[in-house]
Amino acid sequence: VESDFVEWLLAGLACDDRLEVPAGDDAAVVRPPAGRRTVVTVDMLMEGVDFLLLPSPTGCSPEAVGRKALGVNLSDLAAMAATPEVAVVAVALPRHHGSEIARGLHAGIATMAAEHGVALAGGDTNAWDGPLVVSITALGSVSPGRAWRRDGARPGDLIVATGAFGGSLLGRHLAVEPRCREALHIADHHTVHAAIDVSDGLSLDLARLMDASKTAAIVDLDRVPLHPDARRASDLDGRSPLDHALADGEDFELLLAMPAAAARELVAVAGRPPLTLPLTVIAEVVDGRGLLARDSEGGVHPLPARGYLHHFDP
Amino acid sequence: VESDFVEWLLAGLACDDRLEVPAGDDAAVVRPPAGRRTVVTVDMLMEGVDFLLLPSPTGCSPEAVGRKALGVNLSDLAAMAATPEVAVVAVALPRHHGSEIARGLHAGIATMAAEHGVALAGGDTNAWDGPLVVSITALGSVSPGRAWRRDGARPGDLIVATGAFGGSLLGRHLAVEPRCREALHIADHHTVHAAIDVSDGLSLDLARLMDASKTAAIVDLDRVPLHPDARRASDLDGRSPLDHALADGEDFELLLAMPAAAARELVAVAGRPPLTLPLTVIAEVVDGRGLLARDSEGGVHPLPARGYLHHFDP
Repeated sequence: VESDFVEWLLAGLACDDRLEVPAGDDAAVVRPPAGRRTVVTVDMLMEGVDFLLLPSPTGCSPEAVGRKALGVNLSDLAAMAATPEVAVVAVALPRHHGSEIARGLHAGIATMAAEHGVALAGGDTNAWDGPLVVSITALGSVSPGRAWRRDGARPGDLIVATGAFGGSLLGRHLAVEPRCREALHIADHHTVHAAIDVSDGLSLDLARLMDASKTAAIVDLDRVPLHPDARRASDLDGRSPLDHALADGEDFELLLAMPAAAARELVAVAGRPPLTLPLTVIAEVVDGRGLLARDSEGGVHPLPARGYLHHFDP
Repeated sequence: VESDFVEWLLAGLACDDRLEVPAGDDAAVVRPPAGRRTVVTVDMLMEGVDFLLLPSPTGCSPEAVGRKALGVNLSDLAAMAATPEVAVVAVALPRHHGSEIARGLHAGIATMAAEHGVALAGGDTNAWDGPLVVSITALGSVSPGRAWRRDGARPGDLIVATGAFGGSLLGRHLAVEPRCREALHIADHHTVHAAIDVSDGLSLDLARLMDASKTAAIVDLDRVPLHPDARRASDLDGRSPLDHALADGEDFELLLAMPAAAARELVAVAGRPPLTLPLTVIAEVVDGRGLLARDSEGGVHPLPARGYLHHFDP
């Protein structure tokens, strides 16, 4: 039974020409694209922290967990403008219903992998009496010196956001659509100084981008694109849609620091394939540190960086 | 607090020239050695399954867990004759004593990484109310077509084992010494048709090697190198030392299928640096499937493949 999950992962992929030794051995042997750098990212999702499983009322299917587990990694690759190449999967499966969970998980991972041209190169399957844990490591490729980084934003840049924000917990947090294709297209045609993906919160991740770049940003609160889910979440809990957009996280959209002219040029082509998603200038980069907000009246005040942080007792 | 663990991992490694973007970003950017393949392996260790933590009477320190978590991955690289290059670490830390556990874990990982020249390229830190889970992905490099595989053993080959077997649960299962240097030296100087590392059990892993190669092996029971721990374990539970050697697992030694002349030549140089560990011919490869054993009297009978398997309910 142990090897089933890994065998499912590898089914039909033995012929992927990126894999010299695809399956069954102690490790996979990958042909890195000639002259490219390898981009490596890892994310672990834990039942009870990142998701609940059905039949919990707010639970989801193992398929959805599989999609998300690979999707968050691909979002990290998108944030560096890397082409997705290969992934390996380590799982701790609950002993009870383990095979059923493994099958669903595999289906979700394989679907997301196929959508983004990722070769699944193996993994490690474990069973225990604990909750489901999925850890995926994704490898991408990028030309030398061409990876987007967090530390390149400069005063005068504008911040362009893909998509819309807020209320992801109403379901979108599981339906991750990593912006890989969009990132590669933008990297090929536009100048980007720095980038990050929004996993923990728009304001928190923008603050991280500014910290890394040793700059500050003034966010135009009126321009933050509000997802319909942000309004639905507001109806449910009374917090404003903007508050949800700034702090909820798990939007898996990109924030791009770009020279002002490049930003305006990019936003002008939004809507045309392959950039069919909204693109919005939401902030400008200035000298200083931290985040500021400009409100409807033009007043500028400090903006707290809020979002999801992992905490443990000291 | 979240980023501490990853920052510790990265401390002092920012200058490793294999890393173009080492730290803090969404992913690390690695320079793969020119003209080499990338070997990828992942292993997940779970508290309560793979180890217990102190103060449990049979528990170990977080340092030991860290060493082992990287060591088992390096053993997988050794089994493919790959040079260790880079590792990323995902952890689920118990909320209680999380910082202390993270610090110990980091120390163990960093020590093992330094011993084998591995650059730590980042990771993902999570906290929860569950047990400690550590998932490490290691990347190695190998020349095209030069990775050892499991499917290359041929009738007439001899099986050479490194080290000695059995009783690892008395403590050696945590003190993993991956045979990376030995594997690279052997790969450079000797002909190896197929290889595997012994993680789940000498007989089980040899059976996997034979299955992959579509061959059988006759094990000379008298020649299986017994670790002193196998005799100590035998004194404790009454099972024979040989039984412990064949079934205990977690020895993290290598089994190499080699042409008979190459095997004899290799065994003849055992003891000379850098091959200071014992090297023993323990079996011969024959036509057929499965494992056979030759006993002291020369009788040949079927040998069951035994060792550690992960089980879960259907």
